[in-house]
Amino acid sequence: METVSTNRAFGGTQGVYRHRSETCGCDMTFAVYLPPQAEAGPCPVLWYLSGLTCTHANVMEKGEYRRIAAETGVIIVCPDTSPRGDGIADMDTYDLGQGAGFYVDATEAPWRNHFHMYSYVTRELPALIAEHFPVDMARQGIFGHSMGGHGALTVALKHSDTYRSVSAFAPISNPIAVPWGQKALPAYLGDDQTAWRHYDATALIEDGYKVPEILVDQGDADNFLAEQLDPAAFRSACEKAGVDLTYRMQPGYDHSYYFISTFMADHVAWHAERLAG
Amino acid sequence: METVSTNRAFGGTQGVYRHRSETCGCDMTFAVYLPPQAEAGPCPVLWYLSGLTCTHANVMEKGEYRRIAAETGVIIVCPDTSPRGDGIADMDTYDLGQGAGFYVDATEAPWRNHFHMYSYVTRELPALIAEHFPVDMARQGIFGHSMGGHGALTVALKHSDTYRSVSAFAPISNPIAVPWGQKALPAYLGDDQTAWRHYDATALIEDGYKVPEILVDQGDADNFLAEQLDPAAFRSACEKAGVDLTYRMQPGYDHSYYFISTFMADHVAWHAERLAG
Repeated sequence: METVSTNRAFGGTQGVYRHRSETCGCDMTFAVYLPPQAEAGPCPVLWYLSGLTCTHANVMEKGEYRRIAAETGVIIVCPDTSPRGDGIADMDTYDLGQGAGFYVDATEAPWRNHFHMYSYVTRELPALIAEHFPVDMARQGIFGHSMGGHGALTVALKHSDTYRSVSAFAPISNPIAVPWGQKALPAYLGDDQTAWRHYDATALIEDGYKVPEILVDQGDADNFLAEQLDPAAFRSACEKAGVDLTYRMQPGYDHSYYFISTFMADHVAWHAERLAG
Repeated sequence: METVSTNRAFGGTQGVYRHRSETCGCDMTFAVYLPPQAEAGPCPVLWYLSGLTCTHANVMEKGEYRRIAAETGVIIVCPDTSPRGDGIADMDTYDLGQGAGFYVDATEAPWRNHFHMYSYVTRELPALIAEHFPVDMARQGIFGHSMGGHGALTVALKHSDTYRSVSAFAPISNPIAVPWGQKALPAYLGDDQTAWRHYDATALIEDGYKVPEILVDQGDADNFLAEQLDPAAFRSACEKAGVDLTYRMQPGYDHSYYFISTFMADHVAWHAERLAG
């Protein structure tokens, strides 16, 4: 693992690191914020999964998570959204290929050689983080935005023993039923829709996967709300399954980091409470 | 004036606007954050002047000023750092020309046609802001970073009746004596050093200009500290003149927005206190 940069911030350290990923078969870059408390000993760790077109850098620069992370003593890890580089499959579109890994393990050509973001964020990167940073891996939470909200929800539902808390900003909560998912899921996983259900938060809840509670913030002026993010099926699945979903429709907010940064402190504090002790 | 974008953030609105500047002879872009309190009536206005290479966007995206501006009810205006565009003089260097206006009114060719940032930020833009936004122009403060810290200090010293409060992050406080200034000031103002003194915070204080108090934060791991930002002469001038300078040397911090964002809330709150009532 190589250190790309470190900057002092809010009494802690914002770092960017690069390593050779076996899972993705390429170099991968990620960001880690260590709060001041990490100097004294292991801290809980909160994973942030980013949305379409993003790298680790978008939320690191615009997400405004450091103040509240320093206040609550939480380490925040921000992975990239896909494998990248020459020799990695790509498409001339923002919602498939590089920058759009959808947190799945692809089984279809040409993606199956490198696009293993599910295994990367649930296995390889956690092992690397545990080795190099003062993290208490018994206290992990996960959250994300849009495609990364989808990632956070599906990862948490399938590993409810690993992640104590999960939340999302404007998540794709039912990708099977919306254009983004209907483009990415067959490309990465083939035409058999049973494979898709394993990467759909609504379907996972319908199929019996559970977490005790979920926090979601969604802007009502989000351009993608009606077509890509419609939460009706997800809310209904949570209700039927007894998942305690706090779903906050935020008036006037859009899909941008202006929205995310506004509610970032609420989310980090919510996780910190559940990761305490 | 044309609206480029508006985004809901922290209960208020982050906007970006463009207008034809008579002073600079080109289109200029700037950012304005309106806190929620601006819906009820005029609010104090705080001017943020950016550093070398920046536009209005850097601090808007990375500065983390909206939470505290919303909490304290302060409008924040972020101008660009120079005229820009085809047909505007430029140099193939980061510290002279476009992105490096140094908040002076240039008198020398080729800069004198467009590089009038001093008049732009003290006259033309305030008039435009007063016309279009709910600002209480009797309650103005000013701050900035690096070259923008220089801008804020010199503007406040020369207009102590207009700006009630002034602060800076890692300011160029004595440009006459450092390489950045010794490159920019002769290029923009010619070789007569008496003209330079009018744009040097330390020289202005030595020459009798005053403000009651100044807040400065400076990282001690700032790469530019020794060569470009050395505060000794400025501190000494403040002391001799009875200017109440709070100069905070922050251990481990560099020159980046990670530093600025860490201390942004302190600065905005400090201004808000002085702009209240």
